[in-house]
Amino acid sequence: MFLSKIFYPSLKEIPKDAVIKSHILMLRAGLIRKLSAGLYSYFPLGYRSFQKVAQIVREEMNRANAQEFSLPIPTPAELWEKTGRWQQFGPELIRITDRHQNQFALGPTHEEVFTYIVKNEINSYKQLPVTFYQIKTKFRDEIRPRYGVMRSREFTMKDAYSFDFDDASLEKSYNAMRQAYINIFKRCGLDVKIVLADTGSMGGAASEEFMVESSVGEDVLVFCLQCDYASNLEKATAQRDFKTSDEPLQEKNLTDTPNIKTIEELTNFFKTTPKKFIKTLIYKYEDKPVVVLIRGDLDVNDTKLLNVLGGGEIELADEDMIYKVTNAPIGFAGPVGLKNVKIIADESVQYMVNSITGANIKDKHYMNVNLNRDFKVDNFFELSIVKEGDLCPHCGKPLQFSRGIEVGHIFKLGKKYTESIGVSVLDQNGKSVTPTMGCYGIGVDRTLAAVIEQYNDDDGIIFPISVAPFEVIIVPIDFEEEQQKQTALNLYHKLEENKIEVLLDDRKLRPGFKFKDADLLGIPIRITIGPKFLKENKVEVKLRNNADREIVSLDVVDSFILDKIKTLWKEVSI
Amino acid sequence: MFLSKIFYPSLKEIPKDAVIKSHILMLRAGLIRKLSAGLYSYFPLGYRSFQKVAQIVREEMNRANAQEFSLPIPTPAELWEKTGRWQQFGPELIRITDRHQNQFALGPTHEEVFTYIVKNEINSYKQLPVTFYQIKTKFRDEIRPRYGVMRSREFTMKDAYSFDFDDASLEKSYNAMRQAYINIFKRCGLDVKIVLADTGSMGGAASEEFMVESSVGEDVLVFCLQCDYASNLEKATAQRDFKTSDEPLQEKNLTDTPNIKTIEELTNFFKTTPKKFIKTLIYKYEDKPVVVLIRGDLDVNDTKLLNVLGGGEIELADEDMIYKVTNAPIGFAGPVGLKNVKIIADESVQYMVNSITGANIKDKHYMNVNLNRDFKVDNFFELSIVKEGDLCPHCGKPLQFSRGIEVGHIFKLGKKYTESIGVSVLDQNGKSVTPTMGCYGIGVDRTLAAVIEQYNDDDGIIFPISVAPFEVIIVPIDFEEEQQKQTALNLYHKLEENKIEVLLDDRKLRPGFKFKDADLLGIPIRITIGPKFLKENKVEVKLRNNADREIVSLDVVDSFILDKIKTLWKEVSI
Repeated sequence: MFLSKIFYPSLKEIPKDAVIKSHILMLRAGLIRKLSAGLYSYFPLGYRSFQKVAQIVREEMNRANAQEFSLPIPTPAELWEKTGRWQQFGPELIRITDRHQNQFALGPTHEEVFTYIVKNEINSYKQLPVTFYQIKTKFRDEIRPRYGVMRSREFTMKDAYSFDFDDASLEKSYNAMRQAYINIFKRCGLDVKIVLADTGSMGGAASEEFMVESSVGEDVLVFCLQCDYASNLEKATAQRDFKTSDEPLQEKNLTDTPNIKTIEELTNFFKTTPKKFIKTLIYKYEDKPVVVLIRGDLDVNDTKLLNVLGGGEIELADEDMIYKVTNAPIGFAGPVGLKNVKIIADESVQYMVNSITGANIKDKHYMNVNLNRDFKVDNFFELSIVKEGDLCPHCGKPLQFSRGIEVGHIFKLGKKYTESIGVSVLDQNGKSVTPTMGCYGIGVDRTLAAVIEQYNDDDGIIFPISVAPFEVIIVPIDFEEEQQKQTALNLYHKLEENKIEVLLDDRKLRPGFKFKDADLLGIPIRITIGPKFLKENKVEVKLRNNADREIVSLDVVDSFILDKIKTLWKEVSI
Repeated sequence: MFLSKIFYPSLKEIPKDAVIKSHILMLRAGLIRKLSAGLYSYFPLGYRSFQKVAQIVREEMNRANAQEFSLPIPTPAELWEKTGRWQQFGPELIRITDRHQNQFALGPTHEEVFTYIVKNEINSYKQLPVTFYQIKTKFRDEIRPRYGVMRSREFTMKDAYSFDFDDASLEKSYNAMRQAYINIFKRCGLDVKIVLADTGSMGGAASEEFMVESSVGEDVLVFCLQCDYASNLEKATAQRDFKTSDEPLQEKNLTDTPNIKTIEELTNFFKTTPKKFIKTLIYKYEDKPVVVLIRGDLDVNDTKLLNVLGGGEIELADEDMIYKVTNAPIGFAGPVGLKNVKIIADESVQYMVNSITGANIKDKHYMNVNLNRDFKVDNFFELSIVKEGDLCPHCGKPLQFSRGIEVGHIFKLGKKYTESIGVSVLDQNGKSVTPTMGCYGIGVDRTLAAVIEQYNDDDGIIFPISVAPFEVIIVPIDFEEEQQKQTALNLYHKLEENKIEVLLDDRKLRPGFKFKDADLLGIPIRITIGPKFLKENKVEVKLRNNADREIVSLDVVDSFILDKIKTLWKEVSI
């Protein structure tokens, strides 16, 4: 293509509202434009890259024997009600009412509809396993859309769903998708980390996320440098120093602690370590208080807490609720004497003896409080949040943190959706069995943004060849000059004949401006045609990911370029 | 692909609710399924064909230098308000309100947004002309969705928009799209007729529709067998026998016509022809009456009437309104003596002398009524509807009617949208100029359905090779039998090596069942491998569009098939 024929409104300035590199560069390179909060238009060059990512996803899904569908975006409310998600989803789910007063959700994900199709069309174990997918526009009314197409309200997701007769078969389907995802991100040039993840509101038995490490990532990754342990922070666990103590139990002892509330103030006051304290947190869950106990040096992981409570929303109780539960102001809560309230505790509390805790009296704490003798706990769970330096649950070495962008997520869902939608198939003996399910998502826009986030420099994007809008850009210094023009056109046609995607910058602009655009756009190979080298029948070749310039004779330049292209493709081949 | 690996739920029975062939066959062949009224899921084989149509559209748009975008589906209400279509569209426009109370329309078409982009990004005549397009999901809350994907509430449209500096340039952009459309439909195997069309609520100067003739089409096509005149009924005109009369004007004469109202009753009563009567129709438009006069043998074309009134909605007035206007019951309206009401007339009325018309008195008509002497008309227009047998406006031969499915529509829009959105560019002299616009739509789903509507027989679909889900199907009579299996697999791999899309029916089913499925699905070439011919080292080859069976030796079968495929592709090449 001739660049003059492409609508390519590059920007010199950093657009306001854009803070992360991929967002800035996608705007500056004219790949996207904002229409409204969280709603972006893809412009021609951006859409070429978008389609390349989508096509890589499609090819790898097909290779893994997943079958492509396309389902309607509006999905009937009845199906969402069956799975309970019509309520559960909240305002993120965009709902419409049609002219006949029927309600629909604009699908943010399609478990309900795919499960409904399986219910209607599949009735024998012989028709299983199947994995279905689509690459389709999705909606999520984010409260705070941000970072361009990274977290937008309209986005394109590849969503896949596997239906298996039993767990062993699900394991295979899940692993096939896992491998497909590894292939997809490799082919997009992305380095991804696979981390354990929380199953959250999706439900299900197990889940992994594909993360691109990035300082602007919204997720915290926890990983071990020694072994292969890697987890999303929400799901991460650590080895703790729990020991059954042989310390004799001492008498409980009410102590004045005037205006001393925080663990830090208390450790100073009692001249001890945070591990000696039982921290008592009061949460509000479904409008009722829940008391959560944890050792003073640890903190509660809200996701883990929410999962043991059964999902939904949780927040710390307000002063009123705390007063109602403890009869005391904030800062003096403790488990001793609490009545008519659910008390759960982190496993750390099981091992504590002679602890210090709030006395539920203003300006007073108890010393030497002991489990079962002085207070009871309804249930123990693993509730603590992992901190950097905590010990790997597998090998015991210190855990590291980094930040990541979630580009893919795979779940073993189990039977949550097949049961609620009412899917059953007959087994070999004619008995009804509920199939088990997996679901697998990739954000197509976000993958593209993550590639740009991972590959850029001060001058612009550095596209891996597989998702670059074009593979080669030819930049004549002066396209009006006959020799340069003819050289450029010859080379252009030769490369096109070899099925190479070539841009020719035929614009009447200063060369510096053209180079800046080529760099900004991140085309992997630039061929510069100028009078100096042309005198010697040569042109300059420069790779976007390499500062070196090579001067190549016109006799061999096409095979030279074809070789370079081959090498670049090898880097993103599986 | 092995057919056993494809989710292909074919149906023996004709599904209820489906009345037209394409809808029945798409359901029976497992290409689509209904999710809700006007909302269809594409299943894997249907989606393959859908994508082929979309890809043909894309390639031809690109060839015509149109540039592909992808715009958000929710489009801000403010833009629709600027063009007046937020009100104008009515309940077909699906509207959403986000969590921050901003309103959006789920775009049924994207004139507003593309024009807004041009307003923001283009400011010089040097950047024009441009043609932008997208292939994207659209929504229209049809009051009565029907015929499967032919008229659904969610559909995929290729919508394109050209922006030109002047009319001469628009003419070129329009013709480029027109040629692209001719190419697209040719490549899809469709016979289309291009007809003149009404510009309707889109506004604009000129418009043509691409129609597939079909008895189930919802549009009436008017065309001449002699010359190339072809028009949608809404837009059609005919040569009329208008003559300036030299008949002397006679005295107006009030006549008793007891209970005689219709033109037929009146012609019998007066012993004359319908041409002698001025038919007086009273319409309700924007809550006010409008009187429309037309010669008794002609009828009013509501679309033409609405266009001269300025668009919107129109209906015949009720008895109350008629009484208020004429002071008489229905059946005796006439233009004589009407006051305070707009009177418009078809051009036919200009040529009438000594006409008969209602007297606005119960059971009375006037004879010898004459224009200007006895009544006045505010404006004359060409308002009559064409009837089959009326004379071609170009060559005077009788016009023919048929029915058609609209698969494409191209418009010269002019400046309606660029003006209301406020686009201006600077010309050579630095003066602001408003660009002129065209818009161009193809229904992707409807094109696929139209192909099936045009190509089918009692056994199923007969796909043109360009949109068939696969090019070849290999049907071994018994895939368990070793010789058949090996022959099938060899052939399968040979064809795949030649980049042919091959299905292998590896299912353990009766051969009759497999043949029925192959026919239903409409795969262009079927290769049957059975013991009878295999003894002689031969297989049977049958084209779906031809009853003949050819017995071909295995030595030459692959080149034989490749030849057949080449021939089939030639039929759909441009």
